Amino acid sequence: MADTVLFEFLHTEMVAELWAHDPDPGPGVSAGSRGEEVGATTGQKMSLSVLEGMGFRVGQALGERLPRETLAFREELDVLKFLCKDLWVAVFQKQMDSLRTNHQGTYVLQDNSFPLLLPMASGLQYLEEAPKFLAFTCGLLRGALCTLGIESVVTASVAALPVCKFQVVIPKS
Amino acid sequence: MADTVLFEFLHTEMVAELWAHDPDPGPGVSAGSRGEEVGATTGQKMSLSVLEGMGFRVGQALGERLPRETLAFREELDVLKFLCKDLWVAVFQKQMDSLRTNHQGTYVLQDNSFPLLLPMASGLQYLEEAPKFLAFTCGLLRGALCTLGIESVVTASVAALPVCKFQVVIPKS
Repeated sequence: MADTVLFEFLHTEMVAELWAHDPDPGPGVSAGSRGEEVGATTGQKMSLSVLEGMGFRVGQALGERLPRETLAFREELDVLKFLCKDLWVAVFQKQMDSLRTNHQGTYVLQDNSFPLLLPMASGLQYLEEAPKFLAFTCGLLRGALCTLGIESVVTASVAALPVCKFQVVIPKS
Repeated sequence: MADTVLFEFLHTEMVAELWAHDPDPGPGVSAGSRGEEVGATTGQKMSLSVLEGMGFRVGQALGERLPRETLAFREELDVLKFLCKDLWVAVFQKQMDSLRTNHQGTYVLQDNSFPLLLPMASGLQYLEEAPKFLAFTCGLLRGALCTLGIESVVTASVAALPVCKFQVVIPKS
């Protein structure tokens, strides 16, 4: 179905457009970047932040639409499981591959073939290009969590394409 | 399904983002604008052109994915019918409501409830906001046509929300 790829095409265009307007196209963002790490130029940081913000608002809106009325979110972990299944399927037509937690508010969500990284060659070749394809999705997770009443910090890292880890940190209040 | 609305959410964010960066936020784009008409500021024209370009590339990519191998495009009109059915369903989960032509290369495609305009109130109230929600789709049509081997000029007009007319002009070569 074309509508499955529509999101991916649009996301690609969005990333390309924001990068085209980068006022200071310096050296590539460092590998394994978490979105705002050193190595990125000011313009690139701004683009990442814009993408993250767009993802956040889309995540918020999606969070309101997903069929969560049947679920009783007794614990934080239930919410994270919901994101790994329902949200991921809604957006990427697949479930997250694994979810781990230290039971102290830190969760690591791993996707072994993250769809937005799949068009790139696997391995290390284009690793430095990865962060710009992750920022939107970090925002998406943060936005969905926000709608579900949880404030969080979401970062992503890639050790080898197309495997991707999203780290969700929920500060204890 | 959330993935149906995903494209719409993302499109909304994209429009908002491009407008936020409009360096010269002057008076609104004139009603019934064709994307590049008078009334738009330079920044707005640039944003419309950027949106149209993004739509074009997404349309090109989609044109390659749609199941057109079963269709024999003997005539231009067949291609336009294909866009009104298959492309529209793939992107908007509905068919175009009508297709008219003067049989001289001009086609008018009418959608009586264009999904990207639906979130806005119906009637005349937000008419001047409409052009920015049409530019991407104009590009989408032009891009899909391009993949199918037809060069075209695509413009859109709105007389009353959420009814929208896309005019496709195919210059005779």
